[in-house]
Amino acid sequence: MTSPSLSSFFEELTAPENFQSKKQQLDDFSTKHLEQKNRIVLITSGGTTVPLESKTVRFIDNFSIGRRGATSAEYFLKQGYAVLYLYRHRSLQPFHHRLDKNILDVLTVDSTNGTTISVQTPFLESLAPIVQQYHRYHDSGMLCQVDFTTLDEYLLLLRAACNALSWFGRSALLYLAAAVSDFYIPAAQLPEHKIQSSNGKLQLSLEMTPKLLKPLVKDWVPNAFTVSFKLETDPKIMISKAKGALETYKHQMVIANLLHTRRKEVVMISSDLEEKVSLTDEELDAGKEIEEPLIARLVDIHAATLG
Amino acid sequence: MTSPSLSSFFEELTAPENFQSKKQQLDDFSTKHLEQKNRIVLITSGGTTVPLESKTVRFIDNFSIGRRGATSAEYFLKQGYAVLYLYRHRSLQPFHHRLDKNILDVLTVDSTNGTTISVQTPFLESLAPIVQQYHRYHDSGMLCQVDFTTLDEYLLLLRAACNALSWFGRSALLYLAAAVSDFYIPAAQLPEHKIQSSNGKLQLSLEMTPKLLKPLVKDWVPNAFTVSFKLETDPKIMISKAKGALETYKHQMVIANLLHTRRKEVVMISSDLEEKVSLTDEELDAGKEIEEPLIARLVDIHAATLG
Repeated sequence: MTSPSLSSFFEELTAPENFQSKKQQLDDFSTKHLEQKNRIVLITSGGTTVPLESKTVRFIDNFSIGRRGATSAEYFLKQGYAVLYLYRHRSLQPFHHRLDKNILDVLTVDSTNGTTISVQTPFLESLAPIVQQYHRYHDSGMLCQVDFTTLDEYLLLLRAACNALSWFGRSALLYLAAAVSDFYIPAAQLPEHKIQSSNGKLQLSLEMTPKLLKPLVKDWVPNAFTVSFKLETDPKIMISKAKGALETYKHQMVIANLLHTRRKEVVMISSDLEEKVSLTDEELDAGKEIEEPLIARLVDIHAATLG
Repeated sequence: MTSPSLSSFFEELTAPENFQSKKQQLDDFSTKHLEQKNRIVLITSGGTTVPLESKTVRFIDNFSIGRRGATSAEYFLKQGYAVLYLYRHRSLQPFHHRLDKNILDVLTVDSTNGTTISVQTPFLESLAPIVQQYHRYHDSGMLCQVDFTTLDEYLLLLRAACNALSWFGRSALLYLAAAVSDFYIPAAQLPEHKIQSSNGKLQLSLEMTPKLLKPLVKDWVPNAFTVSFKLETDPKIMISKAKGALETYKHQMVIANLLHTRRKEVVMISSDLEEKVSLTDEELDAGKEIEEPLIARLVDIHAATLG
């Protein structure tokens, strides 16, 4: 299922202590929704860390607080998908991320007639639907959240999630929005202890992370509808990089976006499609989110492949 | 006030867009508490980022979610200090960090008699004191929170805060718990765009960050009581590194701690003191926090210097 060199790469990864229980969580969630014949989406979200020391004080990180993933998860839930949300520890989570105001500011304790805590009136209107939707999807078991921190944890959990999702065939959608590090330092080359600044300038040499999209598409979930993301800062290379990825990995879609306009415009690129999804400034100001039309369109395209 | 080479280092730093308004916030808070003759503590908390590209996708970060800073801030508030809390964006904040359970889990919407949101009974008991303390200290203006992300932002805000605190003389305590990067890449050496993985291995060369503790102690707040932290992973060098820092910077105290035991044991080191503060396993299990005895002891030591 995996080439020998990739197998040995995986063997050298450092699994988190609770990897088995997380894997079990993925498996149980998948099995349940397979039985219920639900469509399922795996969303990866947030950045991965690459430690610079084995007792880690310093690490390289990728910019992503997980807004794309958290927001998209909500729209997939509203479209009836079971959502497996693989996210960076302490990055944004569906519904919860909408509590952008410090929640403590809007809570009041009343001890006159037994202790109660209530939400102050002006905030009720915006908070109530968030609380309701959160409970609707959590309580019905449509959302499963599993977190990672390091690149190693992400890769091991991604492989485990793909194994679980392979049984869904074409009903599984993969929405790989996590910002995964392209570079890493192999465990064997890491210094054990915190790098001392008294040693002078710091020279780092990082290896390239194997591109797991290749075995994922070819071997792990060959029938799934796989969507990857291409985030660039240079508009001149965005589309060509996205098309290059599609050609290399032969998956179903790349969503291309630029760091500074990613909340206003994205481009869906597949073998027979190059379609821009964008919001006007008025829509943005009114609080509309680009993930709403994007996920709606994506769900249609996925449905069409199910025949 | 600052040496020529350090002045030029500061001139090359990239200030955040809202730097002036943050500076104003620091100044207003300090002025108010100077008039009220309050003792004041500047707490720095969380890690700093060092961008690897000027349109930043990747960066080096320091491990710290800010638990030491957030918890210490609460104990300083309880001791009557005005607290200037300079913290990494999205790291832990006083009181708020105690909502470790997903707050949405414990909220319920009731729409029977007009919409209300309330906290479910079993969680009332633990949540009520957090909400009450949060409001007590925020509403009385004893806590001022200002956030940073990059190393540059941190350094500029630290200097601004020191300028504001210099008027307090010995009544100011500096509690520098932030994990500040020892290395950085000067802005002029940064690539503009996202580093492409197609270029192969990544070689990075980082310069040493100037040690700002030196001008801070000597020039910026020469009369303040300054406490720095020394976090190590190797127990063999912890005490000697801490004593070395004290000798180099000639400030009042170093708090030494090890990454893996930092919530159980710290050592306060000053010119005439080497004192361990620790918790038993029973105290830890009962939820006691090492910051409670640590801040109590520190406040006593600070008070003794005020005569």
